[in-house]
Formats: sequence, C-alpha cells, structure tokens
Amino acid sequence: MDSNDPGALNPPVEHAVAAVPTARRTAGVQGSLIREILKATMRPGMISLAGGLPAPQSFPAEALRAAFDAVLGADAGRALQYSTTEGHPPLRAWIAAQETARGVPTDPEQVLVVSGSQQALDLIGKAMVDDGAPLLVESPTYLGALQAFAPFGPAFRALPADDSSLQPLAIDADVARGARLAYVMPNFQNPTGRTLDAARRAQLAEAARRFDLWLVEDDPYGELWYREAPPPGLRRFAPERTLRVGSFSKVLAPGLRLGYVVGPRGAVDLLARLKQATDLHTATLTQYAVVRVLEDGLLDAHLPRVRRLYSTQAAAMLAALRAHMPDGVHWTEPAGGMFVWLTLPARIDTLRLLDRAIEAGVAFVPGAPFYATDPRHHTLRLSFVTVPAATIDRGVAILAELIAGELTR
Amino acid sequence: MDSNDPGALNPPVEHAVAAVPTARRTAGVQGSLIREILKATMRPGMISLAGGLPAPQSFPAEALRAAFDAVLGADAGRALQYSTTEGHPPLRAWIAAQETARGVPTDPEQVLVVSGSQQALDLIGKAMVDDGAPLLVESPTYLGALQAFAPFGPAFRALPADDSSLQPLAIDADVARGARLAYVMPNFQNPTGRTLDAARRAQLAEAARRFDLWLVEDDPYGELWYREAPPPGLRRFAPERTLRVGSFSKVLAPGLRLGYVVGPRGAVDLLARLKQATDLHTATLTQYAVVRVLEDGLLDAHLPRVRRLYSTQAAAMLAALRAHMPDGVHWTEPAGGMFVWLTLPARIDTLRLLDRAIEAGVAFVPGAPFYATDPRHHTLRLSFVTVPAATIDRGVAILAELIAGELTR
Repeated sequence: MDSNDPGALNPPVEHAVAAVPTARRTAGVQGSLIREILKATMRPGMISLAGGLPAPQSFPAEALRAAFDAVLGADAGRALQYSTTEGHPPLRAWIAAQETARGVPTDPEQVLVVSGSQQALDLIGKAMVDDGAPLLVESPTYLGALQAFAPFGPAFRALPADDSSLQPLAIDADVARGARLAYVMPNFQNPTGRTLDAARRAQLAEAARRFDLWLVEDDPYGELWYREAPPPGLRRFAPERTLRVGSFSKVLAPGLRLGYVVGPRGAVDLLARLKQATDLHTATLTQYAVVRVLEDGLLDAHLPRVRRLYSTQAAAMLAALRAHMPDGVHWTEPAGGMFVWLTLPARIDTLRLLDRAIEAGVAFVPGAPFYATDPRHHTLRLSFVTVPAATIDRGVAILAELIAGELTR
Repeated sequence: MDSNDPGALNPPVEHAVAAVPTARRTAGVQGSLIREILKATMRPGMISLAGGLPAPQSFPAEALRAAFDAVLGADAGRALQYSTTEGHPPLRAWIAAQETARGVPTDPEQVLVVSGSQQALDLIGKAMVDDGAPLLVESPTYLGALQAFAPFGPAFRALPADDSSLQPLAIDADVARGARLAYVMPNFQNPTGRTLDAARRAQLAEAARRFDLWLVEDDPYGELWYREAPPPGLRRFAPERTLRVGSFSKVLAPGLRLGYVVGPRGAVDLLARLKQATDLHTATLTQYAVVRVLEDGLLDAHLPRVRRLYSTQAAAMLAALRAHMPDGVHWTEPAGGMFVWLTLPARIDTLRLLDRAIEAGVAFVPGAPFYATDPRHHTLRLSFVTVPAATIDRGVAILAELIAGELTR
C-alpha cells in the first residue's frame, strides 16, 4: 500500500464531532441581529431600509479596474509579495498628507494600514483593552464596535448625552473612573446620523486631557457630507491622545477591505505589533492599486458625485418621514452619512414591530442592540442609500401605517 | 469664524503624547526578530537565506491580471460590495471540493475563508484558547503561530518528539493534562522542513481521541512537494476534531492575503462569529478573482512548475551544505517546502553567530525563537527559494567558514 495515496486508505471511520473548545471570551459574542435581518431582506420584493451597504453605483469600478490592471502588468512581483505590516509606504504617505492637509501635521510613520476599519477596532481592543476595564462609548453606538471590543472583556460605560449628541461637559470623575479609552463617531454617527459640533469636540478633547483618556475617533462617513464638511476631527483638538480610524469602504468600495489608523507614533507602533500577529499585513495588491487611484486624484471628481447621490437619497427619506409618520414619532436630520434614527412612543417595542414589518414587506434595524447599556427599545435605524426614492416612500408609508396601528390599539 | 474650516482654528496646541493605554495581554507580543533580520537583509549585496518569501517568479501574474480585469468588468457591483463573513460561496465550494477529492467528504459550510492563514491562527486563539490554558505545540514550531496565540494567554507545552518528528505515541496524560488543542504542521514544517509520516499521523489522531484534543493542522506548504505528495492530511485521520488551515500564499501569491479553515461545522461557525467581529469578512474582490483562476484550472499547470522550481532550489541548498559544512553540523533533508534546519555543535550560539554572518554578508534565522519552551540555541533555519543556486553556494560557503572558525577557537 502506498501510504501517501488517500485512496489507498480506508474511508475515514465516523466519529461523533468532538465538543468544540470554546474560550470564555466568546460568551459575549453573539451572531449579529443585523446579519439575521439582512438575510430576511434577501426575499424578493422586500423593501430594505435595514442595510448599511453603500450604493454600488457609487463604486469607481473603471478606475479600480485600470489600477489593478496597471499594477499587475508593471509591478506584479512586488504587488503579489508579502509586504510590511505597517502598510505600503506610498499609501501611508498619501494618508499622512491628507491628515496634514486637514490641519494636523502627520508623518507617514503615524499611519497603520488595516484590512478594513473594523480591524482597527479589533486591534485597539486587543492592544489596549484589559479584561474588566471600563470602556466609554456613546449610547447608542456602532454595533460593530461593541462586537469588536467584546472579546477583550471591557466593562462598557455610557458617555453622558443630551438630545443632540454626547455631552462632554458632563464627563466627570465618576464617568471616567478607571477608563483609559472613549470610543466615539463624531461625524454622521452610525446609528443616529448625528454630528458632534465643534464646541463639543473641543470640550471632549479637554475632558480627555483632564481624565487622561484616549479618544478613538471612528470616521467612516466623514466625507459623505451633504451641504458642508463637518467640523474638524478630534485629532485637530487632541492629537496627542486621539486615534483616528478611517476607511475606504464608503469613499471607494467596501469589498476592498481597506482602512487605516492614524495617531501618536507609540500607539500606532503598538497596534502594528499586534497586527503582525493577527494577519501579518493588509493585502499588498489592494494597497498598490488603491494608492494609484488616490494619487491620480480620483476622489476629487468622485466624492462630489457620491455626496450628491447620498444627499438626494437622504432628502427622499426625510420627505417620506414628514409625509407619512404619525404624531409622536421623532427622527434625526442627518447632515451626511447613511442613516436616520427614529424614536417612537415608548410603548412600542421595535423588535416586535420588526416581525410585522417584515411580513408587510419592509425591513429596518431595531435600536436596542446599539446600546451597550440601558437599551431604548422604542428606537430604530433606517438606511436610505441603496433604495430608489419611490421605494423609500412606499417603505416608509407601510412602516408608518404599522406604527399608527400600534398607537391606536 | 466658520468652525467647520480647519484653517480657521488655531494650530493645535502641542501636548506631550499621552501614555499609551496598553493591555496586559500585549506583554508577550514582541516585535519579530525575523522582521528585524529581514530589515538587515535589505542591505545591498546581502545574501539572504533568512526570508520566508516565496519566489516571485512563481506568481501567476498574468492569470490574476486577467481575472481581476474580468471581475471588475463584469461583476464590479457585487465584487466591490460587502459580502458574507463565511466567504464567497463559489470559493467555499471549490475548497470543499478539493478537500473531498483528498478523501474527506466536505460540505462548503465547513469552510471559512480568511484574510491569509495567519488570521485563522488568530481566530482559533481568540475563539478557543483561554488565558492560562495549556496549548500543545511542536518544538520547534512556526514562530508566527506562537505570536498569533500569545495575546490569548496560553501556557505553551511541547509535544514529545524524537529526531525525526513529533512522537505521538509519547503523548500521555501528563502531556495532555488540561489541554484542548494541539497545533502542528505535518508537511514540510516551518522551520525544520520535516514531514510527519502516515503512521505517526494515525497515531496522532488516536492520541487526540484518547485525550479529547483538537488538532490544528497548519498546511501552507503541502502542495510544494518535490518528488511525491506527502501523506494524507490529519483530517483524513480525525475529521471530527481537526481544523485544517490552508493558504493561497504559496500556491498563488502571499500579497493577496487569502487562506481558509476547514473543519467540523460547529467549530467553523464559532470561528466565523469571531471573524465577523474581527474584520467583517475577507476582501470580496480578491475572492471573486481567485475563484475564477481556480475554476479555470490554473493550478493544474501552475503547481508542477512551482514544485520543479522549489525542488531545484532545495537540491542546490543541500549540495552546498554537503560541499561546505564542517563535521559536526547536521541538517534536515526536506521533501518539500522552503526550509532546511541546521543543528550545530552545542557550544555555538546562532544568535551571536548571526552578527558575524551579517557582517560577512549572509543572513539566516537563529533557531531559538521557534521554541515555545527550552530553546536550542545552536540551531538555525535556512531558506532557499528566492536566491539563485550560485548565490546559495556562496552564502553557505561563507556561513560554513564562520562555523568552522568557531569550532577551532
């Protein structure tokens, strides 16, 4: 018998699958509710106001096609090889120059390229969050951040907020006690669509200094403004203790999985050390192709188109809400981004509402999972970027009718 | 003042960089010695026998170029969009079919696509390794695996071994006590180049059953055999408790960052849940392009070429060692892969030898870092795939002279 020939062996004996080794840290990691909802939205005819997907017509497919072609034609030996953990030097340089142009002088060595901005959150959790340590978050906040940090065992604690956004002046010693990190999304936040104004950004920087907190500024949507750019980022106010997490998912395309972290050198070096152990480095080929379209100035022409598209879609959503929603329903008016946040009368549980909405052909995301603590069950998130305006109107009308029905029960 | 205009703000006030928040789990994560060595090898004229890079002439650049072009031409809307965490269905199906052809019937749902096989190790650590739990590893073992697992706090414990490879019959209750996982690389191991024979694979499966261990079978080099395929993989012997980690880095190109894990459904589901929190999913575009070249049968023509190249390079290395090394130096004779492992007389510390070698223009990797426990300081790893045969000979001659000099001191 040739023992190297699989066919020469008997078929594998059937053994019951062994109990899966499961680390305690996985207990807090559930399958995502949003993922389950997205599955439901695959049904034909469903109007999905649930998704967080960018509009595919916004992808610069031809520019990327030309860039991949050029790189694989001229530079394949290097573009297909292993590369440095920190990132492709010209891409780091482009990102640093962009940060510098935004008013914060930044060296390429302060940039770490990551495999999508979600990976930045994983690395920050891994490098900086001790089991049981308090971690300050907005309430509500990006669900994917809660999921990224959860395996590292933080004790999530809500930052104080008022009706318009987080309220830095209310951060006191009790809020900050034992915490080293605050995770925030100042621009067109997911899920609320809210933006932190410049005065509060300055106050947040002050609070961070007072209590020796680092700020994790997650900024996937900052370029997607409708009428004017948002206030300067938190790095402008506290460069010595801010890690800005950026993404190419919304300005180019999410299927590339390309993002970055920018901040003080020591922190970026720590994250790079962890990244090396995590996935060695971000795909070389992708970095080569993307820096080529960036250096060609693609964004100068591309971003205005994306902004116009998103602005038009947002206007359609807000018009539909005004036209259809019954009294007692409130919503945010985003100045950019992909989401609007609804607050219903407190007796409506949006998780139960969702079942009826899906039966009626409309999907949304219930608000409770976005809260790390004290969920408000009468909230929900609507997305408006991938659905035609007429369909948004019909979807919102159906949802409004269901809500009105709940209110008259 | 328009508070949204960065230029309208005062320049940021200089504050000293704040102390970086640093989780305790990072204490075990050092910058890689190999990375430092690779930096030294960038010097002009250096003969690097240190690298683990595959030969760039083995990259199927034109096939990949055509595939990226076709995908971005015909299917950009989907190939650039977010996709499922588990992986692109046709790619999962291709991987499952390959596993099935190897004698282990495998369903696509048992496959998780990952961002390079290093990420599989990170996810296995995250999902399955509790802080302080014993984790069985070969001695020596792949340094990147030690780095991937380290942040999750395992107590590494060496699997028993003899001169030829790990020795499964010697796994007893003391070795296995408290452990749920054994990490092994049965084919052309990094760093030793050794292969586990079929009889020992069967014994390892038996030992795993007896002590309720799961086997993590890391197999980046399995396709790189010189004369005949290695014995069947561990999934053939213990499919109910083996996670096979595969990679496209050596058969296509590492710059793509594409790998996979195959195993029992429950374990793969757990890893997918963790992956979602870690980086959402692997790059959609890369998966679309790669499955296209795989379905076109590229590997049938490509792998024989890669095997011939690596076999020729290995022969050059072994001939050089035979020609130049003094008595008392022993080395492995790999039947595939990229590495040969040298054992020098015990009084030579290869970390100190490295300084002299770099001065003399040759780089290698000292062996000690590959040991989780009880390092043997008189060992070293040589790689031979990217260096021309004549240069290998010159590099080995220089190294042999240095070693001979040490021995006559």
